[in-house]
Amino acid sequence: MPVTNGKVIFKSIPKGYPEPGKTVVYDDSEKIDLESVPIPDGGFLVKTLYLSVDPYMRGRMREPDVKSYAPPFIVGQPIDGYGVGVVLKSKSSEFKQGAHVYGTFKHQNYIVFHNRSDLIVLDNKQKLPWSYYVGAAGMPGKTAYMAWKEYSSAKKGETVFVSGGAGPVGSFVIQFAKMDGCKVIASAGSDEKVEFMKSIGADVAFNYKTSNTLDVLNKHGPIDIYWDNVGGPTLEAALEAANVNARFIECGMISGYNTGGAPIKNIMHVIAKSISMFGFIVMRLEHKYDDQFYKEVPELIASGKLKVREEVWEGLQSVGDAILAVQKGTNKAKAVVHVADE
Amino acid sequence: MPVTNGKVIFKSIPKGYPEPGKTVVYDDSEKIDLESVPIPDGGFLVKTLYLSVDPYMRGRMREPDVKSYAPPFIVGQPIDGYGVGVVLKSKSSEFKQGAHVYGTFKHQNYIVFHNRSDLIVLDNKQKLPWSYYVGAAGMPGKTAYMAWKEYSSAKKGETVFVSGGAGPVGSFVIQFAKMDGCKVIASAGSDEKVEFMKSIGADVAFNYKTSNTLDVLNKHGPIDIYWDNVGGPTLEAALEAANVNARFIECGMISGYNTGGAPIKNIMHVIAKSISMFGFIVMRLEHKYDDQFYKEVPELIASGKLKVREEVWEGLQSVGDAILAVQKGTNKAKAVVHVADE
Repeated sequence: MPVTNGKVIFKSIPKGYPEPGKTVVYDDSEKIDLESVPIPDGGFLVKTLYLSVDPYMRGRMREPDVKSYAPPFIVGQPIDGYGVGVVLKSKSSEFKQGAHVYGTFKHQNYIVFHNRSDLIVLDNKQKLPWSYYVGAAGMPGKTAYMAWKEYSSAKKGETVFVSGGAGPVGSFVIQFAKMDGCKVIASAGSDEKVEFMKSIGADVAFNYKTSNTLDVLNKHGPIDIYWDNVGGPTLEAALEAANVNARFIECGMISGYNTGGAPIKNIMHVIAKSISMFGFIVMRLEHKYDDQFYKEVPELIASGKLKVREEVWEGLQSVGDAILAVQKGTNKAKAVVHVADE
Repeated sequence: MPVTNGKVIFKSIPKGYPEPGKTVVYDDSEKIDLESVPIPDGGFLVKTLYLSVDPYMRGRMREPDVKSYAPPFIVGQPIDGYGVGVVLKSKSSEFKQGAHVYGTFKHQNYIVFHNRSDLIVLDNKQKLPWSYYVGAAGMPGKTAYMAWKEYSSAKKGETVFVSGGAGPVGSFVIQFAKMDGCKVIASAGSDEKVEFMKSIGADVAFNYKTSNTLDVLNKHGPIDIYWDNVGGPTLEAALEAANVNARFIECGMISGYNTGGAPIKNIMHVIAKSISMFGFIVMRLEHKYDDQFYKEVPELIASGKLKVREEVWEGLQSVGDAILAVQKGTNKAKAVVHVADE
């Protein structure tokens, strides 16, 4: 008996912030018969359980001829992103019925994969909630873990500044920096987030909307490592307050994603202070660190040594709202969309 | 019999470009008796032969309470910089009479060093002109050689863009990049400099005053390595034309030294293209590469494999003019001041 195969369609390229219903729209016009849907040899049918909504998705909402690291969303097609699902039917020896899989999912209820694509099978020995595998144990967790290992050169006693410290990436960076014996200064955009950052170990946590970032950094710096999730004036302040030989890990610049991004002052400090600045995207680090990540991080989460929080939106219909919340920073924690139970 | 010990005094902190006679002034009021001048134990008397005038000196003409990598010049005191001289009298076992020395020199005719300071003795087996030891075989040459080795990760066939390519640093970078099998795009501010850059191997050389930098880079790029001597709009164009995983070696930003420096657009590309950006100052690399540099580079110069050119100003009286020329880029090549013969 056919069931609805709901989808989140990319409807139009936003000028500023993405608007639910205008930028993306929920479409329930397609039906799928889970019994008779054709599965190609080597392919398999997946039911989507959780989808991730992340800041970088804004960069995909662009004209298709503009090049960037992640491919553009195509108007009229479903958007895609990291997801976790369960295999319902399979003609693959690797992705067997009942297996849970992680990777890039179209935002729809059911997906027929024709090959392994970029998917991996999750064993989840620790019985973590499946949603964690698109957050702390997924791309955002990998981003924090892998780039911290690759670029921070953290030494005990150094001072680290993390912007966007309450998010899934930033909150992990705070905790990894504390494990490495660093002093951590962290910023976020609400008092509630400030409390959370303190609860996970930040030595100094402040609300950048009510405190002057440069004043805080001058008081508690200079900064040896800056983990940048936001760009803009916060990056300018970090350059100003940087120590000699500082490392800047450029993870995101969400302050500019919806406005184009203002030019950055203080770049001269890169020379004057011998700053190394590392842009990266996590895909380019995965081949090096993926095994290590899955060996260590789910265990650290299960044991409570790495603290995790998430905010769950309900149903594919809510994807547009979740996207906007993440771009505005009004989400409280890692944004996850619960699409279905098994 | 006392002789004049001429000096170049820092007279006032410039607002924009340094003005000869106003920013620095030649002072011939001091006499020195070379026979009777007291030499402390371990000390030695040096006669200055050549002094170097370099872009970074602008950054030292600042309020003394502003921190930066090189100490500020002090109003009323002689300026200093890299120099070569000959030891006239010595109570040092290391710096003997007749030895030629290189290091930081006050801009004056005669200097009594109380200890070894940062000086080294030059053996000059290749009989290069002594002036080369403040240029190609001195700080600018080291800057190019050491940072290219440390940061470029150059691979054969990659495309390198060098701004300020006719200067002492840039012209070396062009030649090192060619030795490593790279394609080189180079810019400078006059047609004469463009011809010089071609003569030392640049595959594409252009005058940024009459060509659009981004157009040239889009045509001949994308860029894998950017050697930045100028900052400003050229840096913005390089970010725009950068390849994925590009390395940006941030050596100088002379376009902003006299104007404060405008904010930089396009920083977002650092993330989108996984760019690594390395600020550095050569002093921090010397311990690692100094031996190798002196073993290789004077030999490469002597054999003609590394081409060198310089522009010589005559006498301490000309230091102010040389400083202004270097800041404006009206010098034709490495600016050297000939202070005296042996």
